This record gives sequence, structure tokens and C-alpha cells, in this order.
Amino acid sequence: MTEIARQARQAAATLARTPRPVKDRLLLDIAAEIRRQAGLILEANNRDVAVAEQKGMPPTMLNRLRMKTQNIDSLAAGLQEVAALPDPAGEITSMWERPNGLTVGKMRIPLGVIGIIYEARPNVTVDAAALCLKSGNAVILKGGSEALESNLALGNIVQEVLRRHDLPQAAVQVIAERDRAAVGFLLQLDEYIDLIIPRGGVELIRAVVGQSRIPVIKHYQGVCHIYVDAEVDETEALRICLNAKTQRPEVCNALETLLVHEARASSFLPLVASELAAAGVTLRGCERTRKILPAMEPASEDDWFREYLDLILAVRVVDDMDQAMKHIEKYGSLHTEAILTKSYANARRFLREVNSSTVLVNASTRFSDGFELGLGAEIGISTTKLHAFGPMGLNELTTTKFIVYGNGQVRT
Amino acid sequence: MTEIARQARQAAATLARTPRPVKDRLLLDIAAEIRRQAGLILEANNRDVAVAEQKGMPPTMLNRLRMKTQNIDSLAAGLQEVAALPDPAGEITSMWERPNGLTVGKMRIPLGVIGIIYEARPNVTVDAAALCLKSGNAVILKGGSEALESNLALGNIVQEVLRRHDLPQAAVQVIAERDRAAVGFLLQLDEYIDLIIPRGGVELIRAVVGQSRIPVIKHYQGVCHIYVDAEVDETEALRICLNAKTQRPEVCNALETLLVHEARASSFLPLVASELAAAGVTLRGCERTRKILPAMEPASEDDWFREYLDLILAVRVVDDMDQAMKHIEKYGSLHTEAILTKSYANARRFLREVNSSTVLVNASTRFSDGFELGLGAEIGISTTKLHAFGPMGLNELTTTKFIVYGNGQVRT
Repeated sequence: MTEIARQARQAAATLARTPRPVKDRLLLDIAAEIRRQAGLILEANNRDVAVAEQKGMPPTMLNRLRMKTQNIDSLAAGLQEVAALPDPAGEITSMWERPNGLTVGKMRIPLGVIGIIYEARPNVTVDAAALCLKSGNAVILKGGSEALESNLALGNIVQEVLRRHDLPQAAVQVIAERDRAAVGFLLQLDEYIDLIIPRGGVELIRAVVGQSRIPVIKHYQGVCHIYVDAEVDETEALRICLNAKTQRPEVCNALETLLVHEARASSFLPLVASELAAAGVTLRGCERTRKILPAMEPASEDDWFREYLDLILAVRVVDDMDQAMKHIEKYGSLHTEAILTKSYANARRFLREVNSSTVLVNASTRFSDGFELGLGAEIGISTTKLHAFGPMGLNELTTTKFIVYGNGQVRT
Repeated sequence: MTEIARQARQAAATLARTPRPVKDRLLLDIAAEIRRQAGLILEANNRDVAVAEQKGMPPTMLNRLRMKTQNIDSLAAGLQEVAALPDPAGEITSMWERPNGLTVGKMRIPLGVIGIIYEARPNVTVDAAALCLKSGNAVILKGGSEALESNLALGNIVQEVLRRHDLPQAAVQVIAERDRAAVGFLLQLDEYIDLIIPRGGVELIRAVVGQSRIPVIKHYQGVCHIYVDAEVDETEALRICLNAKTQRPEVCNALETLLVHEARASSFLPLVASELAAAGVTLRGCERTRKILPAMEPASEDDWFREYLDLILAVRVVDDMDQAMKHIEKYGSLHTEAILTKSYANARRFLREVNSSTVLVNASTRFSDGFELGLGAEIGISTTKLHAFGPMGLNELTTTKFIVYGNGQVRT
């Protein structure tokens, strides 16, 4: 494992010097090779699926593991999209003059070696490799052991194309170990690995944080809120709430708690409750909500902390925006919150004072996503504040160094 | 300890909402109060110094512990300087439109709660508090136990002024514990503390990283290099090398290894060696250096890794810039490197390909410093790449959130 990490570190030095056209051609060739070797990939995947079925893997997990011809197409298309994105490495983000004549700038450079720890989802193998390569980073991939054959088939293709381009194969390495202990060992190698991105449930992330000497991007939970203000366009609010809750209830940027200003409660709550119920959503309300809608299930204290990831919604009537913001501060997960309002002052204050990673005015929480926000890609979402906060694109796979142009300056 | 961290978290929420004028007045009042209570501070410091002397603290450490009237003045002046700096919180670093009409921006917000772990240097107590308050963060200060009385005296003044401004006293807390175990406990509280900045030697930092569940800014070493290229202004190069090595040899941005292109070795090495020797520097050379200057001590493999922090310099003759860059990659610490050259192409390539936190052309390594680079302040220097790389100013005590202005957008 140390040898894998050591070689990744060496490969990273080469990648950091590799110019954009070479990286882009590499990605396009990987796309072509994945299409060409689709049969081989699907065979490997079939072996994984067969074993997983025997072992009784639940259907939702099996669905994520199973690859079809259209998955191969979308992997290849994804590589082509990443090739078309701008290269973050080498970008000068700012530059200024000092009184002594020094010109000081900040230049983006790759982080170095990135470790991705994920579940049995073979598409992550290719997506993560593409983003790391594009930004000039080497990557070590440790996916769920149930997908090992699929991951190795994909990893071999990537390494084959790397070799063809005279780039080090260690730039992309799939850990061929089924053992979970391999992860624990990997997480000690802070001399060689710069960042760990775990992609999976809260338990996985907590376990990684507990063991790691390497910095970890944490995506804990998405307990996302919408606050419906006193002055609001109810038709628009209704459409946004429905979209945020029901368009894809199983993902982290779906709505989990609806907060409604008391001045709107009697008119808006019956409206939204009936539409949500028609869409199959179960509502759990606070006492004030249930005074208006007595048939609704009661929400317990625990409900305010819940990330349902399901067609369930907690609803609370609040006195005003201050109480809404206090609720978010106490129960929220720093992921995504939205205010729906006609009030300029309230929109401005909510945006300024709510410090979650994405804060929206008059739009669905579902936009908290790297592609939707315009990052061009998404390697993950961070719900803690260090290095990156919120959806992460290619820039978040870089750091900046200071560059200084002098003409003989010394310090006095 | 948990209670301290919990209160800091609450105070951070208030500070994040506190507008710049209030924060600036607070800092100016702390400055005034420190001047007014100078007698009290110096008395507390005298008690610390007396105990430390009895226990046989080495003179260099005693010097850092001991405060004089001029130290009080410079603490107060430092607070005034920080008050005059721009407030990073609330700054919009970029903004763009999406095809669906959403306007997306990134806004700087405070990190939240910052823990500073440092040695027996009372000035850090005030400097760190000033930068954290200015950027809207709460801070927990754990200084060396030998400075506890001084730190508590300073902390009490800050809290007194916070109270006077109706701000939570928990915004700045000095840990009154002399026990090192308190640190270990603090480092587990990732629910409340966002970032740990240790300021001290490599051992302190490694110990903190080993224990911490909270992200840590790491400042390992400054093995700084100057590479003297084939085409160079020797007079200028001489002045820069002397400055980088001798102006303050005990600090992390001082020169530790000099690399000289072989085409320059026979002319430049005797020149620089004699001037450095006259300034009291001991030189340790590679074999090729010692062919030109046989009286020089030999450098061992170990010397290339050394951060001397002293009037000692390792010297190596290299075939060309490639070999110089390979040397830096192998032995360097990612802190600061400079090239001295007249070649446009080499300057450009060195700046692009050397990925240390500060890379300079034709200037002294001593400029790798928050004030000198124009950050207005310095809370530390990071030699690893996550969150911050190189000297850290107020911006590095913030993160960015996404803000999104919509007019009814939903995802389809």
C-alpha cells in the first residue's frame, strides 16, 4: 500500500507538469477505449453482480452496481465533457504590486495525490479519475469490494491509455484489495496522500475521519430547509416546495424541513399539504401546523434533525424570519437552505446571515449541485468549512501557491 | 473543556453577524485597554518569568516569554493595524449567471471557531485574537503553560472589552489549564471547533496531527532553496543570497541550501563563500563545490534535508535547472524557493513547475511572509496544501458559501 502511495506521489509530479492538450487527449482516448472495450467491462460487471446477488445485496445497491450499455455511453460522454472544461492548473487567481516593486500573484496548482473511498458504484471510478487527471492530480481509488472486478476492468483501461501517452500508470490506481483494513492503512500515509474524499453514508465518513491522518472532505448530511416568508408569491412557493421535496427525494439537496411564517400559515399550509400529499409525501407537523391541519402526523424533536431521503417532510410554523434562522442554526446540517420571499430586506439578510454551504432566494434547494451551479463538474459536496464548502468542482482539486516576480529585492 | 467549545460555537454565530464598524471599535478599545492596564500585564508576566527562571528555562525561550513596555506598545499597535484592514467576511469573490437565469456567487464567511495551540509567547495571544475577531471567528487559545499568568491577564482584558461592547465573552477564551492533556481533549471536539492552528516546532505539529479529529494547519519546516542560474547578475545574486541567509537565520524563510549552475560555480562560489564566511556563516559543500573550495566542510546526504535555522548553509553545484528542480522536489519542504536568473524562459518555467508555497524570481526568500507579500497580517504559514498553502492572512480564516439569486427556478 505504501508503494502504491509512493508511486502516486511520483506520478503526481509528472501530471502537475503535463500541459492541458495532453491531458485532454488522454481523457478523450480513455472515452474511446471504454466504448471499444464495453463488452469486457460489462462482463466484469456481470461477475460482480452475480456474486452480489448470491450474497443478497439489496435491490437499490444492486441497481447502483449494475452497468448497462447506456452506462458505458454516459461514462464516455462524461470524460468528453471533462476534457472540454477549462484546466484549473496554472490559472492566476489574482496579482498585485508591492511598494518595493515586487509583483505577487497566486497561481492554482494541483493538490497532488487524492484518495477516493467509495461504495460499490463503478461509475465513480471513471468520474473521479477524469476530474483528478484533468486537474493534474494522481488518484488512488478504493471502491466497495462488491464492485472490484468492474473497477479493475475500468482501471486497466485507464492505465493502458496512460501508458500509450507516456504518462505514469500510477496516476490512476485501483486498490485490488477487498479487505477494509487496506483503507485504515491508506489513511495513515499523509506523507504521500494530500486529500481523502469519502463518498458514502455518514458512518463511512465518520469512520474515515476517526482514522485519518490525511485531511478529509466531509459530507455528513443534507437537512435542507425552505423558509416561506410572510410576503411571498404562493403559487411560485408551491412549485418550488414541490420540486425541492419530490423531484428526487433520495438525494442530499432534497427538502427535509419546511418553515412557514405564521402570517402565511393558514393560507399556504393547506395548499402545500394537499399538493404534497397528492405527490405521495407524508407530512409531520409542529403543534401550530396541526392546529390548521389536525389530520397531520405530529413531528417530534427528533424529526427536526432528520435527513429523511424519502417522501416525508417536517413542517413548522415560525413567528418570523429570526425564528426560522434560529431553527436552521440549531437543527441544520450546513448543507442548503432557501428563503422564498418578495421582501428585498429579508432576502438580503437571509443570504448574509445563514451560513450554510448553499443559500438560495426564490429557487429550489435541488440547485445545490456542482453542475447546476455552473462548476462544470462535481467531485463531491463538503458540509464542513475547511478547504471547500458546498459542491466541489475542479478548482477544489487545486490549491494556490504564491509567485513573486522581483528585480533584486532584499529585506531590510 | 466541552463547555468552553460549546460557548465558543455560540459566540461565533454572533460574531459572524457583527458588522465591521463594531469589530473595528472593539479592536481599538482592546488596544487602549492594553495600554491602560500595561502595569497589570507586566506584573503577571513578571510572575511567569520568575517561575520560568527558577525552573531553568533556556535564555532564548525566556526572551520570548518576557514582556517589556515596548512589547505592550507593539501589541496595541498591532491591534490598531488589524482594525484598519478590510473585513474579509461578506466579500463576494465571484459571481456569474446561469442559463436558467440564476445568479450564483461565492461569499466569504468566517470559519467559526478556531483553536490556536502555541508556546510560551504572550504576544500570540493578542495577535491571534485580533485576527480571529476581525474575520468574525471565535478563538480558543491554549498557550504554553509557562506563560499562563500573562495570557490570562491579556485574555481578561479582551473579555472585559467584549462585555463592554455587548459581545459574547466566549468569543476569546484562554484555556486556564496547565495540563497538556487538555489539548488532547480539545482536539476531539470537531463538533464545535472548525480549525486548529498550532504554532510551534515540528514535534508539536506532528503530535497535534496525530491526535486531532479537527483539521490542522501544518507548518512543518522551511528548507528553503535558492537556485543561481547560468545567466545571472552575480552582484545582485550575491546580495540576495547574503540577505536570505543572514538577515534572520533563525526563521523559517531563511535560506538553507544554495544550488549553483555549474557554469557559474567557478566564478560565483568563491565570491559568495567569502562574503558569507565574513558574515559568520559556515558552509557545507557537495564534492563539486569542494573541488573549487577545498577548505569547505563536506555536506552529507543528511544536510540536504536540514532546516538549520542557524548560520550554516549547504551548497551544491548542479548540472542545470532540471537537476536543481529535482533536488528541490526530493529534499525540499514545500516552503519557499527562489531562482536568480536573467533568462526569461527559465524564470517562467521555474515559477510554473516548482510547486512550493512561495516561489520567487530574483528576490530574497525572506519575502515569504504575510506582511511582505501584502496580506496585511499573518496568522501562520501552511506547508501543506489543504485550505491554505503558504503565508495565511485574514482571508485564510474564512471559507466561501454559494449564494443564489433566483426568481422561481425549479429543477427539471
